[in-house]
Amino acid sequence: MNPVEQFNHVFYPRSVAVVGASSNPSKQGYLCLSNLLEGGYQGRVYPINPTMGEAFGLKVYPSVRAVPDEVDLAVIVIPAEASVAAVEDCAAKGVKGAILVTSGFKEVGTESGAELQDAIRDIARKAGMRIIGPNTIGLVNPEVRLNATFHPGLSVGFPGRVAIATQSGGMCSYLLQTLTSHNVGISKATGLGNRCELDFEDVVAYFGADEATRVIAIYMEGLDEPRRLMRVAREVVQRKPIIALKGARSRELDGATLSHTGALAGNYELYKAAFVQCGIIGVDEITEMVDKAKTLALQAPAAGNRIALLSATAGLSIVMADRCQRYGLKLARFSPSSLRRLRGLVSELNSVDNPVDMSWAVHDAGVSRGVLDTVMGDSGVDAVVAAVGGASEALGFTQASCEAVKKYGKPMTVCLGPFSKSMDMLMKMFEESGIPTYPLPDRAITGMSALVHYGEIRGRFLG
Amino acid sequence: MNPVEQFNHVFYPRSVAVVGASSNPSKQGYLCLSNLLEGGYQGRVYPINPTMGEAFGLKVYPSVRAVPDEVDLAVIVIPAEASVAAVEDCAAKGVKGAILVTSGFKEVGTESGAELQDAIRDIARKAGMRIIGPNTIGLVNPEVRLNATFHPGLSVGFPGRVAIATQSGGMCSYLLQTLTSHNVGISKATGLGNRCELDFEDVVAYFGADEATRVIAIYMEGLDEPRRLMRVAREVVQRKPIIALKGARSRELDGATLSHTGALAGNYELYKAAFVQCGIIGVDEITEMVDKAKTLALQAPAAGNRIALLSATAGLSIVMADRCQRYGLKLARFSPSSLRRLRGLVSELNSVDNPVDMSWAVHDAGVSRGVLDTVMGDSGVDAVVAAVGGASEALGFTQASCEAVKKYGKPMTVCLGPFSKSMDMLMKMFEESGIPTYPLPDRAITGMSALVHYGEIRGRFLG
Repeated sequence: MNPVEQFNHVFYPRSVAVVGASSNPSKQGYLCLSNLLEGGYQGRVYPINPTMGEAFGLKVYPSVRAVPDEVDLAVIVIPAEASVAAVEDCAAKGVKGAILVTSGFKEVGTESGAELQDAIRDIARKAGMRIIGPNTIGLVNPEVRLNATFHPGLSVGFPGRVAIATQSGGMCSYLLQTLTSHNVGISKATGLGNRCELDFEDVVAYFGADEATRVIAIYMEGLDEPRRLMRVAREVVQRKPIIALKGARSRELDGATLSHTGALAGNYELYKAAFVQCGIIGVDEITEMVDKAKTLALQAPAAGNRIALLSATAGLSIVMADRCQRYGLKLARFSPSSLRRLRGLVSELNSVDNPVDMSWAVHDAGVSRGVLDTVMGDSGVDAVVAAVGGASEALGFTQASCEAVKKYGKPMTVCLGPFSKSMDMLMKMFEESGIPTYPLPDRAITGMSALVHYGEIRGRFLG
Repeated sequence: MNPVEQFNHVFYPRSVAVVGASSNPSKQGYLCLSNLLEGGYQGRVYPINPTMGEAFGLKVYPSVRAVPDEVDLAVIVIPAEASVAAVEDCAAKGVKGAILVTSGFKEVGTESGAELQDAIRDIARKAGMRIIGPNTIGLVNPEVRLNATFHPGLSVGFPGRVAIATQSGGMCSYLLQTLTSHNVGISKATGLGNRCELDFEDVVAYFGADEATRVIAIYMEGLDEPRRLMRVAREVVQRKPIIALKGARSRELDGATLSHTGALAGNYELYKAAFVQCGIIGVDEITEMVDKAKTLALQAPAAGNRIALLSATAGLSIVMADRCQRYGLKLARFSPSSLRRLRGLVSELNSVDNPVDMSWAVHDAGVSRGVLDTVMGDSGVDAVVAAVGGASEALGFTQASCEAVKKYGKPMTVCLGPFSKSMDMLMKMFEESGIPTYPLPDRAITGMSALVHYGEIRGRFLG
């Protein structure tokens, strides 16, 4: 079976066994089972526990081998010592992949923990079975409503284009929930934990081949062999962008990461240089990752870095221009004929010389159409960022933007103001036309910068 | 009348006149009137327009002088040329302060615009009347439900402790709405526009004396005489913190700011140095300003920079530790007895050596109480930041946190996870006990850093 086919069994399983299923609501074995059943997953679910007869109305089997059906994915939530036998059981059954939620392996720092982890890796490698973990939250695939984790909060994601892989389960949950709260859908998400067998390069290669995925977002603390990921990344970024957030940036944190997922953090500056080398978009914080993933999920890369700024109020343009500078974006210079046309559309009291201070004109569909047509049609403009926030009546501008993006094929992002109910309709209109919206003007620029940078990266790697 | 008394008439007016009141909903003169009446302001409102008899069921007067009552505040929304006479009228009437919403003055770059602005300043100075603007959005005071602006969105603020002053009206609206969406109340907010008579130093001095205000947040583009603000700031920061966001950081933007509020942007590095010198907390972006204003509004400054980190999942601690490094915060070293006590409370699988990985213990009120008691009681700890996000059942931890902050008087901030309905109750519990909550772990650290820095600033200036 080729790696993609095997991963497909893991992320689109026909059947899932929960080893260590429990009827005690405070146990992870209960949560793993209930998340599968209550999350809406439509495949077959097999609880495994030698001491139980029934759980959630399902027959409980004493072992994976006793299940009278093929098992694609196993979720293992029993103590570390016992899990070696469970992994052997899965291997014998021909399970395609096992999630080891269990902790107590390399991350505890004992010799026996490391030995157990190696034993599991060896069993899996011999059997050709994939192991996610140990010491992981699990994985989700909203497309098939699969929540194979112990965290009910991971059921909130809706199907979309961003794939998440993280070393930390908590960060997997955070990224998924934060993206969801920004109206960004998820193709797949997985925690990797101690990465005894399956590592970032494996899952990034799979996401690279996965048709549902358009953007790959990874959170790492420390890699044992960064070059393996770099080699895969160089190839994947020719087709889709990879955004990476590196945690644990100071040597002081090596102790914390070692006890967290059994890995040293390593030197942050080296990671940053490696990201640049292999075309990964490195980010400094969660918000930046979310803002960049959002545009990359919705739009094609920009052809260049010359940005036109439009706003309903000049102060927001100035905040946006400041952020352009941070990300190496340039304010476009409009052609003389564009300037003349804009002057005819916008009041003489307002600046039209990029940034364009549209003021009350954002309320006027005709004027908005004229401004967007002029700016998008100017060959000196690669992309447009607008801030109409606060202007909840900016329906005309919204309609004109959706038309202009379709007509000119240039990317656009919009700041709609602190998200509120009154913005919901406009947000929906923009985003259904592929124009991502943001609650703050500077964040609309951060989003746009990813389209510019990914355009540069693709140009560099496709030569 | 002393300046504070006069400003009190402006921010707590007994009566407001709208010069240029209109019954056309697309006019600013309509919006200014409707925001006063529909925003819930309980004082007397006088529409002024020589060509109308009635508006919103109110008698319309031909001039401010014709109003048979004292007028504390006038909002002037008529064309620039006509506004000189209106300002004279207000001066003759003994109006305490006038908001000049009107644009078309120094910011348009014409000689006549600058002359009109100077004429207005001279009339006001002679009469001892304050002028806000021209070219401004106006002011709000949620305590008395006063929305004296043309923007209905500014009625959303609720009474609280953060005062806002901005050069740009758009940014005034953005800051107010973003703070509101983060559950932060507003004491007062005002745009300053072209600042022909009233400048940052005047309003900062007033906010410094204002009992309702605990934190002052300012957004500036360029000041003509920064030293005046610095002198006032040095004195005010001994009593309350000032946070400043400087927009227009590149010389390229001088043109944009000149046409925006009639001022050059100036050198950003000089501004940053000036902020440090006079004890202003400079911030780089809107989110940072909101996060810092939120903690400063709720808590007293920290005694030092030694932070204890607690989390339900280790990945979040690592992200928080990275952010500590950015802001010069240190991870506290727990005493041997604290470490022994923590080891007895938290599973052996989890780290307790700061960061404390509490894992499932956040669900247990008794264990949470023990952990918080140990950490807050450790004399090597100045403040605590916790991330319990995703753990919507963390009621026990929430109760224990509220008790511990009260008992030990050390500041605390909490990351509660991407805000959602299920978090509302916990957020309310935390914030009613003065513990600010944030949707992301790094932002909880940003918030805490302001308490540490303001503690240092106060120490330096009270010296």
